[in-house]
Amino acid sequence: MDTPQPGKARLHIQEVAPRDGFQNEQQFVDTQDKIRFIDALSACGFAKIEATSFTSPKAIPALRDAEIVMHEITRRPGVVYTALVPNVRGAERALSCKVDEVNLVMSVSETHNRANLRMSRDQSFAQLADVIDAVRGSHVAVNVSLSTVFGCPMEGDIDPYEVYELMDRFAQRGVDGITLCDTTGMAYPSQVEEMARRAREMFKTLELTLHFHNTRGMALANTMAALDAGIDRFDASLGGIGGCPYAPGASGNVCTEELVHMLQLDGYDTGVDLAGILEVSATLPALIGHDVPSQILKAGTRSRRHPAPCA
Amino acid sequence: MDTPQPGKARLHIQEVAPRDGFQNEQQFVDTQDKIRFIDALSACGFAKIEATSFTSPKAIPALRDAEIVMHEITRRPGVVYTALVPNVRGAERALSCKVDEVNLVMSVSETHNRANLRMSRDQSFAQLADVIDAVRGSHVAVNVSLSTVFGCPMEGDIDPYEVYELMDRFAQRGVDGITLCDTTGMAYPSQVEEMARRAREMFKTLELTLHFHNTRGMALANTMAALDAGIDRFDASLGGIGGCPYAPGASGNVCTEELVHMLQLDGYDTGVDLAGILEVSATLPALIGHDVPSQILKAGTRSRRHPAPCA
Repeated sequence: MDTPQPGKARLHIQEVAPRDGFQNEQQFVDTQDKIRFIDALSACGFAKIEATSFTSPKAIPALRDAEIVMHEITRRPGVVYTALVPNVRGAERALSCKVDEVNLVMSVSETHNRANLRMSRDQSFAQLADVIDAVRGSHVAVNVSLSTVFGCPMEGDIDPYEVYELMDRFAQRGVDGITLCDTTGMAYPSQVEEMARRAREMFKTLELTLHFHNTRGMALANTMAALDAGIDRFDASLGGIGGCPYAPGASGNVCTEELVHMLQLDGYDTGVDLAGILEVSATLPALIGHDVPSQILKAGTRSRRHPAPCA
Repeated sequence: MDTPQPGKARLHIQEVAPRDGFQNEQQFVDTQDKIRFIDALSACGFAKIEATSFTSPKAIPALRDAEIVMHEITRRPGVVYTALVPNVRGAERALSCKVDEVNLVMSVSETHNRANLRMSRDQSFAQLADVIDAVRGSHVAVNVSLSTVFGCPMEGDIDPYEVYELMDRFAQRGVDGITLCDTTGMAYPSQVEEMARRAREMFKTLELTLHFHNTRGMALANTMAALDAGIDRFDASLGGIGGCPYAPGASGNVCTEELVHMLQLDGYDTGVDLAGILEVSATLPALIGHDVPSQILKAGTRSRRHPAPCA
């Protein structure tokens, strides 16, 4: 039952906890702990690991050790090591660390972009276009993560055609991949299926990733809807870490071990070693100083057996 | 977007928190609080409310006030008030309180049945057959909730044909409905779709309910799979209360407000007033003395708007 079924797509699972997770933590995760954490993840079969962010250390002190982390992790062949890059300065730092991919971020929502990045969408696009130019010819891939694709916590609904139009502008600039991000858990299954299907049809050569948050409990349902639309690449965060500032106390990113657990039961080949990631996830509370949203970490996998009580 | 879409099935949502939820609470919920809670739920559009359990007060002291609760709640026309009944004595008590339905429970797994009910499956079936006979002719409906349909925490996988066979034995006894329960959150989407589809084909005249737990995060994904199989009736528990003794700290029953929220976004007519149930759910922590698993209660619905930060 846990064996991949013929005819089911090989999926690509991309781990974002070292960046998207740690970035949101109050407690600084020790640099050597980060390196050990990423090295442990590298052995688990992920297609991609978002290792860090080349942002200003003042803006995101939690990831002020980006260079050391990128230099000291042990790169595993077959794993793409990506890093968030906000501007040309960040791109230069990332290139000097020989990242495999830079991950650029902006919002589809004007209000969210201004709130999150403190500039207009036009300014963001221009800045990211400069990054794309700076990276061109370096053999480093470029991915763009689009925030608030399925809704904005300030503006509400987002017109899907604004999403496709922004995707098209980046596609024209020659990016390799685009991630559609449900930044605050507003996506719902029928919306995901329709938008993912349309995006696949329109951008056949782009590597498309879906990035869900479990803020309102729908992350795994949305994953199933995305699979129905032919999506084969998903971001996820170990332990479900990486909160949403608009929903204090609620879950953030979809939990990697819950995603992989469900997908494997459903017969998909995720490439990920579930037992391995559960071991790594169990180390998270000590690293970040608090419990994690992962349910599987508490309940165990479906295959866990409990002893029958004595008669 | 929150308006039901033509062609989408009218769904029936059945609230189990007053029984399945309160039963598992350490803190006794005051009888008058229970009555107010059920009365508030009655105004919210549920198809059915599991109000209490006519079990021995020694076995389940949390629901020792079953008679008072059933007598003093205000019955709303159109809502089916059901109560759990373990034996003929419980059925007599339930009938004297004029319940609309009795809900009988046994496990498909022999080991779980012995652990939970302290008898063999054959003994349980015989006891429940006596209850069915006792209720016959009373105009009170009979539902049977089958536990561990999608897996047993002690035995592991359950042969689906054992489920269908047990369903058939109850169908032959003339029960009105059967609930397929994922007692410990072991169900996964492809399994749910296949078993639900087969059960619908085999038992066309039975009222079929699916009862999911979110122990491993899959409850809403499983709900989507059940919908694909044509299921239109779901149990759910307000706030997600009602734990699983095999997964301390993990979520229990699927959370009603998260279920209804997703289904409404997907265009289904649930009949349930989402704003209304969120108000009632917000009263739960005070009633039971602790936080509830509901994510929506923390994050708000998808339509919640946050102010844009000042520039």
